[in-house]
Amino acid sequence: MYIAMNRFEVKRGSEKDFEAVWLNRDIHIRNVPGFVEFHLLRGPEAEGHTLYSSHTIWRSEDDFKAWTRSEAFRAAHKDAGSNKPLYNGHPVFEGFTAIQTVGAE
Amino acid sequence: MYIAMNRFEVKRGSEKDFEAVWLNRDIHIRNVPGFVEFHLLRGPEAEGHTLYSSHTIWRSEDDFKAWTRSEAFRAAHKDAGSNKPLYNGHPVFEGFTAIQTVGAE
Repeated sequence: MYIAMNRFEVKRGSEKDFEAVWLNRDIHIRNVPGFVEFHLLRGPEAEGHTLYSSHTIWRSEDDFKAWTRSEAFRAAHKDAGSNKPLYNGHPVFEGFTAIQTVGAE
Repeated sequence: MYIAMNRFEVKRGSEKDFEAVWLNRDIHIRNVPGFVEFHLLRGPEAEGHTLYSSHTIWRSEDDFKAWTRSEAFRAAHKDAGSNKPLYNGHPVFEGFTAIQTVGAE
């Protein structure tokens, strides 16, 4: 299991606009091989911003990498630049590999 | 859905020891109300450290908060201090609320 996250520092007062962009976007990922689940996450508030994270679970890092080279990826990101005024700087990408999983009993 | 993460900057060369602590610990969480799934995640390498994150999915933030006040929480953390030499500073807690979920088709 691989989790791809992008962290966004959304400017104070722009939270609702940022959420609306995500909630209203076209979704191109449901049929991508290896895609498991996507979540948009709202995190802690800090000085002047609220942290958000896109959180996509993939079967493997290879599936994620294949997606980044695909037409579906280009379609998903073609309008991303128009949201830039809503957050500080650039989103920060972090990719994680699960090395232990514990489920509920 | 609520995700509780703790970020650890594990010192270069201590990665295997850090993973062993997690992989060999006693697990006290499987029966906690609202617990869904735990993952230990290995993230990107940076100057002098590798980022790790504990990643616990809860049904709700209230379930997570109830757990932090429980005996099971104390049992899970009683030896946490002994791992401190393996990472920089303190783990950084970040809690996230899912505001959108997209599943695979």
